[in-house]
Order: sequence, then C-alpha cells, then structure tokens
Amino acid sequence: MKRLGVSGSKRGRPDIVHSTLLTILGSPLDRERLLDVFVHTWEDYVIRVSPDARLPRNYDRFLGLIEQLYETKVVPPEGERLLELRVQTLHALLDELRPDRTVAFSTLGKSRSIRSVFAEAMPDRTAVLIGGFPRGHLRSEHERLAGELVAVDREAIDAWVIAGRVVYEFECAIGLDKKRLE
Amino acid sequence: MKRLGVSGSKRGRPDIVHSTLLTILGSPLDRERLLDVFVHTWEDYVIRVSPDARLPRNYDRFLGLIEQLYETKVVPPEGERLLELRVQTLHALLDELRPDRTVAFSTLGKSRSIRSVFAEAMPDRTAVLIGGFPRGHLRSEHERLAGELVAVDREAIDAWVIAGRVVYEFECAIGLDKKRLE
Repeated sequence: MKRLGVSGSKRGRPDIVHSTLLTILGSPLDRERLLDVFVHTWEDYVIRVSPDARLPRNYDRFLGLIEQLYETKVVPPEGERLLELRVQTLHALLDELRPDRTVAFSTLGKSRSIRSVFAEAMPDRTAVLIGGFPRGHLRSEHERLAGELVAVDREAIDAWVIAGRVVYEFECAIGLDKKRLE
Repeated sequence: MKRLGVSGSKRGRPDIVHSTLLTILGSPLDRERLLDVFVHTWEDYVIRVSPDARLPRNYDRFLGLIEQLYETKVVPPEGERLLELRVQTLHALLDELRPDRTVAFSTLGKSRSIRSVFAEAMPDRTAVLIGGFPRGHLRSEHERLAGELVAVDREAIDAWVIAGRVVYEFECAIGLDKKRLE
C-alpha cells in the first residue's frame, strides 16, 4: 500500500484523526515503511505524515503539535520533517500520488467485506480514503475520486476501526503477517 | 467471544487503555453484544466495562470518568452501570468467567499469525489477555493463566492494534463480517 489517505476530517474532531493515526502508525505495515499517510481536511489542507513520525500518544500533546503545525507549516521546524501542512485539494493530492487503485469506504457504497476488497491481486499503489468525521458521508466530489466505493458494515464504523482493519488486511494480502514472524 | 480481558495496564498509562477500549467498543462484535471487556490493573483492580458503555472519545473526559470510578466504584452512580470497579486478581476473574480457551499475547510466546489463532474451531467462551503497558511483559503468574501464549510479530505491537485485530479476526471466524452486510 503506497498511499493511505484519511480524508475529510474536520478540524473540530482532531480526536478522530489522533486515534486513527495511532492505529495506522502502530502497525507492522508502517514499520516496514510500506504506507504513506495523509490527512485531508475540510478546508483543503493536507497534512503529510512521515512514516518515521512517532506521534504523541497523549491527546493534549498531539493537539499542541497540530496547533504548532498550523503556525509553522512544518514540525519540528528544524531537522527531519515529521508533519508537513500544505494547501491542497484531495483531487490534487491524488493527481500527485497517481495510485493504480482508489478505494473509499462509505455506508453508501457496495456491500463487501474488507477481506474481499483486499483478497484480490493488489496493485503496487493503492489509495484508501476513509472519512474521519463523526457523522455524514464523504462529499460527492470525493466519492467520485474513488474507483470503488465500499460499505463494510450496515452501520457507520469509527474511522480508526476501519483504518486498522484495512492496514491489517493489506498486511495479510502481501504476506507481511507471516514474514514478520520468520 | 464471551470474554475479552485487557490485562496489566498500569494506572500510569490510562491513554493505552483509552485507545484500546475505543477500538474494541467501536467494533461490530461489541455492537452485537458478543464480547465482555475487563481492565485488570497492576494493583489488582478490575474494571468491568458494560457493552453499552459509550466511552468519551475525549481523553480528558475519559480520565475524569476513571477518577470518578476510583472514588465511587460505579459510574454513573445512579442508573445503568457503565463501569464498575472491584478489587480482584486476574486469577480470580478468570475463575469467575470460566473460559473454555485462554489466549495471551506476548513477544515471548510461540510465533503464530493472529489469523491462524482464530481460524480454528472456536469454543463459545474464549478469553484473550492483552498487556496494556508501554513496555515489559505479562507477569509470569499471568502468563501461566493462559493455555496459549502467542507472539504475532517479532516486535512489540501497541495493545490497541492487537486488540483491534483480535476482535476483527474473531468477527471473521464467526462470519459476522458477512452477516452484518446481509
């Protein structure tokens, strides 16, 4: 998985982004440097998260880091960049990343298990869009950016739960779960 | 999965417990009321978490709730119990729950993928022990409570990542992922 996007998180709910990033960045897939994470916000900012970023587990410290990011555009201001903020639409971000496959999750999508989505032969560069907002759906112009719109449960499921499962199924699809035990 | 225990979380790291509970309680398995969650602490307290508990996603509000719990033993003090605190060892808790199978996760365990652990025919009452501490291992007397000690990665993985994968694999093992899409 070359790219994994968390899309549409409103600035009002950074706790959802925090939980989701902790889940993704704690995964073996991230430790193998096989994914890139972006947070696209409602106001068309994109936060680029370095695979090396060890985010604060404490929420208040995470909030402080994000506030600093909105001021300085890069944190830390010197040395290796862990987070970087740019003005960019989701469309422009995907244009830049050029994934071979783009999957978005939404209760409005086609009913499929997460396992079946990732059981297929995977192209190298897969983008995954997960809405990070407390209710509502992906904006229709964002839905249209995805080749596949998938519903994995009849109810809305928290972003960090979906993200954890997507990363895990991707690991299993490429055999990383077994490889990490050799 | 009738029982799912998060064991050994020291009081100093309630953020690990918070992230882990958010992951578990956001799952379809919890929504189907098919799991019970307990937090066993270093000082031999056990927090019983109601499947109906909708925990605060905000960490400071969660901390406030836990502080209240240590004062009043039950929260909320009136009405339906969401969290309940008792003095109880992990041994006594498992004696009470009487699971048919007890699996503990530790880098000291036998190397197996999570998928293979839950691919077997599952007894009704499975207990899972996941250490919720930042470093170190399960206490040896706790390890001995488990029939199976399993390492799912060569590195230590965050408790909430393991918990999310365990719950998910259990859902797949009982076909819940497909059933929830019918």
